Amino acid sequence: MFDSGFGGLTVARATIDLLPAEDLVYLGDTGRYPYGNRSLDEVCHFALEIASHLVERYDVKLLVAACNTAAAAALDELVEILPVPVLGVIDPGVSAVVEASRSGRYGVIGTVGTIGSRAYEAAVERLAPHTEVVTCACPGMVEFVERGVVSGPEIEILARRLLAPLLGHDIDALLLGCTHYPFLARVIGDIVGREVVLVSSADETAFALAARLAELGLENPDPDRRGRQRFVTSGDIRAFTELGSRLLGPELIDAERWRPFHQTKESA
Amino acid sequence: MFDSGFGGLTVARATIDLLPAEDLVYLGDTGRYPYGNRSLDEVCHFALEIASHLVERYDVKLLVAACNTAAAAALDELVEILPVPVLGVIDPGVSAVVEASRSGRYGVIGTVGTIGSRAYEAAVERLAPHTEVVTCACPGMVEFVERGVVSGPEIEILARRLLAPLLGHDIDALLLGCTHYPFLARVIGDIVGREVVLVSSADETAFALAARLAELGLENPDPDRRGRQRFVTSGDIRAFTELGSRLLGPELIDAERWRPFHQTKESA
Repeated sequence: MFDSGFGGLTVARATIDLLPAEDLVYLGDTGRYPYGNRSLDEVCHFALEIASHLVERYDVKLLVAACNTAAAAALDELVEILPVPVLGVIDPGVSAVVEASRSGRYGVIGTVGTIGSRAYEAAVERLAPHTEVVTCACPGMVEFVERGVVSGPEIEILARRLLAPLLGHDIDALLLGCTHYPFLARVIGDIVGREVVLVSSADETAFALAARLAELGLENPDPDRRGRQRFVTSGDIRAFTELGSRLLGPELIDAERWRPFHQTKESA
Repeated sequence: MFDSGFGGLTVARATIDLLPAEDLVYLGDTGRYPYGNRSLDEVCHFALEIASHLVERYDVKLLVAACNTAAAAALDELVEILPVPVLGVIDPGVSAVVEASRSGRYGVIGTVGTIGSRAYEAAVERLAPHTEVVTCACPGMVEFVERGVVSGPEIEILARRLLAPLLGHDIDALLLGCTHYPFLARVIGDIVGREVVLVSSADETAFALAARLAELGLENPDPDRRGRQRFVTSGDIRAFTELGSRLLGPELIDAERWRPFHQTKESA
């Protein structure tokens, strides 16, 4: 499982709880984070490099792109190239929000990269073509979450301005199409209104992962086994474990360092 | 002169160019940056601590609060308490935008702290009571500038959403009421329209500073003297000099470290 940074830890948490017998390797690309402002080409490049590393170094049996921006940019290529099955967060998220919406008119928010890729529109077209989706990019939200600011006047004003284009579309469900956004659920809920059901991709992705493992006969056969969790970061180990353990929980005690080949100016 | 971080370097640049004979000490409080999300009380506390340090340690003859948030929070108290004259960026900015506006209807943008303090409305009431000011808080902009992101789709979408409340008010001038915003002038100009004159507080504050020094007879008497610049940071020295020298220019070669008494959790 990988993500640009910490957001995917919401998916990791749901996975550990649902599938405790499975081993999990989580790679957070904090050395090159955030992805939202990068070109889709560059994100796709990063995703392929990370996926190769996880397959080769850790011999994973299945890969989860637990980052909406990376899934939007690279899922098709990952599926095509990798020797193992690949799961993204987009299809599970769409299925869940379609399920949650009674009117069939719902919203999706995400980074500029995710929304700009139109990956959600494509997934809706495939999975629920008779429903109506309103998308809205929310630049800036990830930065506040990563700084630990999830309440207060700054994020409230920012979220109100960012979500303005969604209001008036009469949606009754909203998919938080970025793994960072669940940390802002209260702020977002106050703005879009209590009648709008907020849907996070994390739980749905864990369910989809369990179903896929079962379908492929890849589950660990011993249900009493306690799986091992390993964490990898391309950035500073101490910063990663400090914030990461607050977000994930006690399983994240330590992390391994990975040095990607493609550095950026800031991370070089 | 002090600021929460790097933004005040725009004022420092203008000051060095206009008053090359004067010595300048610039303190960037990067260890406790950013101020925009802090309470005005806390910012006021920081400003008093910094001001005392600059007066005691460097024996300054005049103090410039080159940070809109700090000026909004603490200028009155600084003026009252300090044994030297104090200048903020708010009054010079208001004078300049009033000058630039032909219709007398203009905008001011700033951090949540600055705008929420209503310091600009108070300054307009004092300096130009027959003009009309529209204020608009822009949370998130500072974070993008400090990350070095001043162009591209993310900041463009963010700025468009943040500035939406200003549009339709028929303003003809806009004061960039945060020392970080001049770095976003192109993006902001594209959104508000070319007919709106953008005004930065930096040059105006340097002019006001020169006028005040002359008025008080505090100018350095030797016009051929080359003033000395010193830089102080409460954060990481290398990070400060690296980004700082890109923003200010060749005068910023090195910085001294200052450890404030009032640490925050993150900087402790």
